[in-house]
Amino acid sequence: MKRKATKKAWAGRFAQAANPIMEEFTSSLAFDQRLALYDICGSIAHCRMLVKQKILSRAEGEKIVRGLESVRRELERGTFPFLLSDEDIHMAIERRLTEKIGVVGGKLHTARSRNDQVLLDVRLYLRDEIVTIRHLLSALQKQLARMAKRYSTVVMPGYTHLQHAQPVLLAHHLLAYYDMLSRDQERLQQCGERVNVLPLGAGALAGTTLPIDRHHVAHLLSFPRVSENSLDTIADRDFLVEFLSVCAILSTHLSRLAEELVLWASSEFGFIELPDAFATGSSMMPQKKNPDVPELVRGKTGRVYGNLVALLTILKGLPLSYNRDLQEDKEPLFDTVDTMKEILTVLEAMLPQIIFRENRLREAALDGFTLATDVADYLVEKGLPFRKAHEVVGAVVRWCLTEKKGLEQLSVEEWRQFSPLFSKDLLPCLTLESAVDRRRSYGGTARSEVQRRLRSIGV
Amino acid sequence: MKRKATKKAWAGRFAQAANPIMEEFTSSLAFDQRLALYDICGSIAHCRMLVKQKILSRAEGEKIVRGLESVRRELERGTFPFLLSDEDIHMAIERRLTEKIGVVGGKLHTARSRNDQVLLDVRLYLRDEIVTIRHLLSALQKQLARMAKRYSTVVMPGYTHLQHAQPVLLAHHLLAYYDMLSRDQERLQQCGERVNVLPLGAGALAGTTLPIDRHHVAHLLSFPRVSENSLDTIADRDFLVEFLSVCAILSTHLSRLAEELVLWASSEFGFIELPDAFATGSSMMPQKKNPDVPELVRGKTGRVYGNLVALLTILKGLPLSYNRDLQEDKEPLFDTVDTMKEILTVLEAMLPQIIFRENRLREAALDGFTLATDVADYLVEKGLPFRKAHEVVGAVVRWCLTEKKGLEQLSVEEWRQFSPLFSKDLLPCLTLESAVDRRRSYGGTARSEVQRRLRSIGV
Amino acid sequence: MKRKATKKAWAGRFAQAANPIMEEFTSSLAFDQRLALYDICGSIAHCRMLVKQKILSRAEGEKIVRGLESVRRELERGTFPFLLSDEDIHMAIERRLTEKIGVVGGKLHTARSRNDQVLLDVRLYLRDEIVTIRHLLSALQKQLARMAKRYSTVVMPGYTHLQHAQPVLLAHHLLAYYDMLSRDQERLQQCGERVNVLPLGAGALAGTTLPIDRHHVAHLLSFPRVSENSLDTIADRDFLVEFLSVCAILSTHLSRLAEELVLWASSEFGFIELPDAFATGSSMMPQKKNPDVPELVRGKTGRVYGNLVALLTILKGLPLSYNRDLQEDKEPLFDTVDTMKEILTVLEAMLPQIIFRENRLREAALDGFTLATDVADYLVEKGLPFRKAHEVVGAVVRWCLTEKKGLEQLSVEEWRQFSPLFSKDLLPCLTLESAVDRRRSYGGTARSEVQRRLRSIGV
Amino acid sequence: MKRKATKKAWAGRFAQAANPIMEEFTSSLAFDQRLALYDICGSIAHCRMLVKQKILSRAEGEKIVRGLESVRRELERGTFPFLLSDEDIHMAIERRLTEKIGVVGGKLHTARSRNDQVLLDVRLYLRDEIVTIRHLLSALQKQLARMAKRYSTVVMPGYTHLQHAQPVLLAHHLLAYYDMLSRDQERLQQCGERVNVLPLGAGALAGTTLPIDRHHVAHLLSFPRVSENSLDTIADRDFLVEFLSVCAILSTHLSRLAEELVLWASSEFGFIELPDAFATGSSMMPQKKNPDVPELVRGKTGRVYGNLVALLTILKGLPLSYNRDLQEDKEPLFDTVDTMKEILTVLEAMLPQIIFRENRLREAALDGFTLATDVADYLVEKGLPFRKAHEVVGAVVRWCLTEKKGLEQLSVEEWRQFSPLFSKDLLPCLTLESAVDRRRSYGGTARSEVQRRLRSIGV
Repeated sequence: MKRKATKKAWAGRFAQAANPIMEEFTSSLAFDQRLALYDICGSIAHCRMLVKQKILSRAEGEKIVRGLESVRRELERGTFPFLLSDEDIHMAIERRLTEKIGVVGGKLHTARSRNDQVLLDVRLYLRDEIVTIRHLLSALQKQLARMAKRYSTVVMPGYTHLQHAQPVLLAHHLLAYYDMLSRDQERLQQCGERVNVLPLGAGALAGTTLPIDRHHVAHLLSFPRVSENSLDTIADRDFLVEFLSVCAILSTHLSRLAEELVLWASSEFGFIELPDAFATGSSMMPQKKNPDVPELVRGKTGRVYGNLVALLTILKGLPLSYNRDLQEDKEPLFDTVDTMKEILTVLEAMLPQIIFRENRLREAALDGFTLATDVADYLVEKGLPFRKAHEVVGAVVRWCLTEKKGLEQLSVEEWRQFSPLFSKDLLPCLTLESAVDRRRSYGGTARSEVQRRLRSIGV
Repeated sequence: MKRKATKKAWAGRFAQAANPIMEEFTSSLAFDQRLALYDICGSIAHCRMLVKQKILSRAEGEKIVRGLESVRRELERGTFPFLLSDEDIHMAIERRLTEKIGVVGGKLHTARSRNDQVLLDVRLYLRDEIVTIRHLLSALQKQLARMAKRYSTVVMPGYTHLQHAQPVLLAHHLLAYYDMLSRDQERLQQCGERVNVLPLGAGALAGTTLPIDRHHVAHLLSFPRVSENSLDTIADRDFLVEFLSVCAILSTHLSRLAEELVLWASSEFGFIELPDAFATGSSMMPQKKNPDVPELVRGKTGRVYGNLVALLTILKGLPLSYNRDLQEDKEPLFDTVDTMKEILTVLEAMLPQIIFRENRLREAALDGFTLATDVADYLVEKGLPFRKAHEVVGAVVRWCLTEKKGLEQLSVEEWRQFSPLFSKDLLPCLTLESAVDRRRSYGGTARSEVQRRLRSIGV
Repeated sequence: MKRKATKKAWAGRFAQAANPIMEEFTSSLAFDQRLALYDICGSIAHCRMLVKQKILSRAEGEKIVRGLESVRRELERGTFPFLLSDEDIHMAIERRLTEKIGVVGGKLHTARSRNDQVLLDVRLYLRDEIVTIRHLLSALQKQLARMAKRYSTVVMPGYTHLQHAQPVLLAHHLLAYYDMLSRDQERLQQCGERVNVLPLGAGALAGTTLPIDRHHVAHLLSFPRVSENSLDTIADRDFLVEFLSVCAILSTHLSRLAEELVLWASSEFGFIELPDAFATGSSMMPQKKNPDVPELVRGKTGRVYGNLVALLTILKGLPLSYNRDLQEDKEPLFDTVDTMKEILTVLEAMLPQIIFRENRLREAALDGFTLATDVADYLVEKGLPFRKAHEVVGAVVRWCLTEKKGLEQLSVEEWRQFSPLFSKDLLPCLTLESAVDRRRSYGGTARSEVQRRLRSIGV
Repeated sequence: MKRKATKKAWAGRFAQAANPIMEEFTSSLAFDQRLALYDICGSIAHCRMLVKQKILSRAEGEKIVRGLESVRRELERGTFPFLLSDEDIHMAIERRLTEKIGVVGGKLHTARSRNDQVLLDVRLYLRDEIVTIRHLLSALQKQLARMAKRYSTVVMPGYTHLQHAQPVLLAHHLLAYYDMLSRDQERLQQCGERVNVLPLGAGALAGTTLPIDRHHVAHLLSFPRVSENSLDTIADRDFLVEFLSVCAILSTHLSRLAEELVLWASSEFGFIELPDAFATGSSMMPQKKNPDVPELVRGKTGRVYGNLVALLTILKGLPLSYNRDLQEDKEPLFDTVDTMKEILTVLEAMLPQIIFRENRLREAALDGFTLATDVADYLVEKGLPFRKAHEVVGAVVRWCLTEKKGLEQLSVEEWRQFSPLFSKDLLPCLTLESAVDRRRSYGGTARSEVQRRLRSIGV
């Protein structure tokens, strides 16, 4: 970038030139370049409205629009000449526009301020990115649903406290993540509606004295709503905090999936084989095949939480309306958008290539007395209060641990030593399929329930 | 509390008694007592459904319901005998129930687990508290709207960068907060819908083998929806994170209002007089009158942010489904609920008693060349490009600073030294009322706009 | 608590009585009671200094000290009569003192303010608690060292990416935590020195006009240093943030140990058996034995992080000197102190009762080609560049995976198919003991190194 | 960057090529380039030790060192050819080395792993940056001390609750920040000692089988200590969390200074004039002169807190030893280092150019009954208990508020209406200088005390 002394847009009142340390410290150009095309798109709409309202003449308007389109092409081609003296992307574009079309370029800024202009850019940008993230999220959900369908009869251990609890369908487990992500979709959509509000026209803080038509700009840019209070419009960033917190929840969900993939890929679990194409090795240990992708997905939760904390901290206790602190809203936003898109993309690409070791899952599902609850339920059906039944089965398990036996290995006689209610109709209950299929309460793990759910989400 | 060796609900499998250090460490009774009445309410519905489904006999059901109601009375009267050996409120109530009605009490736990039971309690609790918080928030909004109406012609300086920018109506400033809180209302309502889902019937993690009717329980407890996946139901706490993040945004808004009240009460600003009844003095400095209430409101933002971070941290990377870490979800939730209610209550009580010093606001509104933008707009209307007009006015301001004059003190001749476009029609623009009223763009600070807004929110 | 209308210490300037909502909102008595004995201890030292400096007469001083000691006895016995109208513990104690000894009690507050008084209490409190925490931490370290000694020849898999990497000694693994905690000790000690500074005498913010002797108070209360600047003394809480951040790091370390215990107790890992006395069961699943203690230790990391964020948020952007926001410093501090003490206590009690399944660890240590690096090292010693050797062994591992063989099962001929550098001197390298013991670089896992380390820490 | 298919260092074991989405997702080259020169510096020391230990021949060693120096020159000149297929900076450098000196380049990685290598780079980097930050911090402290000296007799209002409390010296206020920063210095220095420990030689996790001499490498790179446990060395990042938390405290301090500058620059306070060279204007409002620098300093607190939360989140609950999540440690570190350096640099440049309006400070210092405590102290000296004296003065203040008088305007007769203890020796106490100078308790605001302090810090 070339450094060139250009006059600041606000130089009139100042006797002394800006200090270069200050200029570098306050410049946002390094990161807000990302908003360039949205800035132009917003400026064109603003300009068209100014013409419609006769604040600019038709000729002026056309000149400006053509100038902006020419700047857009430079940006798209990467030939736009940025200067170190450009404070931010808005000033860079306006400077360039004026270089191209002369002093009339200065009229574009009529009836707006950088305060409302930057908010327009950010809202246009985030509106688009939310759509993109929702598409990626849908694609990931679809993969989960397809996997659930593919593995719809595979049994695995269900866990509480990372201890085997009861057998569940792998499909049921995968659909748990589907459901979490559905709520994330809902939150993103509702957040998106609060993003989708036109801020332009709030001026620097108080509105403008010129006869603008904000609803026309909203129409041109497809905003269903126009903000109601100029001070609030300029001062608040709650739509960004909300977006970051929705992403924090989403990344929490993905961190849990990632944790499970890391566990499942360990030789102790051995539930899955990660695709070679999504694992890395070690520069020292030749045998290693590492689950780097889920590890990084899990690790990146840190930055998403951190970005949320950053923005909350920035906003805390700020008086109205605009304060320069708010310039710091962009980097946490951009980093979160990038992170979410990357994570969703890589998971969507990797998940379908994971191979589940069905035998290992099945073996594990039997391990650890996972059918103990079924035995207790059996006793309850025979009339024992649940608490009592629980006690009986607890004693059976303790005995089995000493004898190193599994529940399915006990004879009816052995069972009856613990309670006379046991009889041979117990034995058919002691299979994984029976255990799974009998849990047919709404939302339970029974194959019938999981099939119902798969149908209801259209897979 | 008496310590008494009671047998744990899960003692059957264990050879060794629990270590008291562990018991104290893992007990949640100290804080989950708050859920007691919700627990009973949920248990009664569960019991009625068990009877309807013939899992319990009518006689058993009636005995249990009557027993629960008797326990409820003890809780309401504060005569419920808690024991140190009670692990949590659920076990305490069930123990007490069994003391009252005998072994049939044990049947209440049929077809449910503490995992889904505690979620039911928390969702019932939070559903109620969201309603309460929304009421308090409405009341606060109403105060803001009433104050806006009362002060609907008072002019104050509008700020950017804590510098005087343009004059605004105090009403417009107050309504900015009204609008922020409206979005908080919206978020609370939408979060509340995600809270309002029946978890009971998810069992420990996989559903239950007994022929329960979850939709009937939902009906009895007025839940419009039933959760779809038992593993997700047990494992996730996103509805709590969402609530905490919505409260974090709300508390951010209130921290900004609080900051402004602190500033305005300073002798430098002198914009408001806090009511004696809501200020405190100093034990050392006899003249002090301190804005403790807004300071604490601002300070309490810390705990709300901290609670959000706590819960996000807890959830990060947890494998499905229940893990004991999740017990730690309650204290941040309860503390946030209490904090929000306290803050909203005290602000609602204090705000209407604040006295605005209208003259001081008006004086300040003129200070700092707040009409400079109006002069620039004047030049734009005369045909100068905005950027050029800005430059001219900047030079006027610089001159005024040297001459220690206000803009409204310059003669037409003096004005014309800076641009020939100035003429005597400039002078009527240089009043606060003119400056305010000319900003009549939608959402601007003009009296007409603010009146429109007040009408639209029904004040 | 009785509500009684007592006159506030600062009532002189106020025309209107305090609003009860405000009183409840601003009262800190519910949590700062914990400082009561430190408050008295600090007051006695302050009083003695006032007598020495002749600001109080000897008779007044004795009366006050005797009064304070009588109040202390009430506090210790739990008979101290708290009133709802007491704003905080300092006012409660002074009120009680005055009830006991009459108006001379009011002289105790000479030359101090609640601002420096509360800081004295907090510093005295935290100084003690840091000592306690350091003792508990030492005890935990000792347990780790003893366990390392006990298991000093047991081999387990060393992990990277939760994949088997190279065999290590269990003792080496345990000592890794020992070393982490040593740094925590160091940080606590250094933080403690910054806590251990006398704040009393800073007055409300500017010092006092009375001829006090701060160094004498410091001497009486064993403070090695006296604070240097009264404004800084009153305004800053960095010693608390530092303590919370040191605890956050410590709790991070413990969360990692806890995570490993949870993993190791799973049936997939099966590395340890938790003591019955430190596990809990399930109210639904009779076979469960859950690692609740490590889960809660891990979960409590959330509150420690949250408390740190809370205090950082509170302090951000506060102007000097005291602001009421700072009252919010106490609850995060107290909660963190309690949490750290609980966690350290329960871990110290549980760890020595954990049973390691040595055979299972040994089996796992061989699993997953953990000796592959040793083979690569063998080739390097024969002159192959490391990168090349790595490649050869990678190919061997790939072949073994296909053939379902372990490295230790290949014949010399099979080895030589991959490189002519292999000969029969390879085979003795392919044992766990050889692999461990050859890593004798300083700090490595060789038995000789671990023995050296154990000696150096005095076990 | 060119994409070129290079073989991964760990490709041997893999059948399938890496997926480009995965490659991009896991690559750290975009940010770890910053470590390039440290990587080379560490590699040269490692290589020299390998030669000394005869693990490499002298000729091999020389070839490698010369190769590394040639790579360093490319990096310094910006001619180093990065490839998209380089996973990270370490692999990029090794690849380039091998391109230059052939297969012997592969021998450099003998007896080390990327796990210990990257830690060496980070520790070398951070050791340097801590030195830089401490220098910048010293420079800022020096500016504060010089300003304190320059303004050593200027009186300003001292605040509590942002209300005027007692008059203080501006110098005393500035030195409060000096003292905060002194503790930050201490923390940085102690943190630096924990950074300054050699990790190299820990290998991938367990040490190495080759006869390396870690103490020799430590000597070559000036590390006073060598890490004690290889697993801990690889697994922990507590030295980074500590650095981030120390920076969080430092940025809290600077946020408070920034907040005060923003307040003081407001037209309400009017205490300071910011230098034109460090302020910016508005693109819309020609009169504006905005305190952007302090606003951004305050706002950047958010990212520093966020970075701390990010790293804490990443580490929570990670099992030993290396996990790929840890790659996420770098960006929060680098961003924090950059931010701290920027903030300290800009403040150091701006502070000495700020102009304090001494008259305005003096006027304000009298405003708000700031001498009320002095009157109470006067009564105490006449024998009234403090609490009683406080009450009397409170009544005087209330009367003055009604009468719109300042304390210094009352006649002796008026004073005596409130207490017979008042006599004409009161009047000399009622000046700012008297109030300031009488607070000569150690650390108080008296000119004598502030002079003592200035001397003790050598100004």
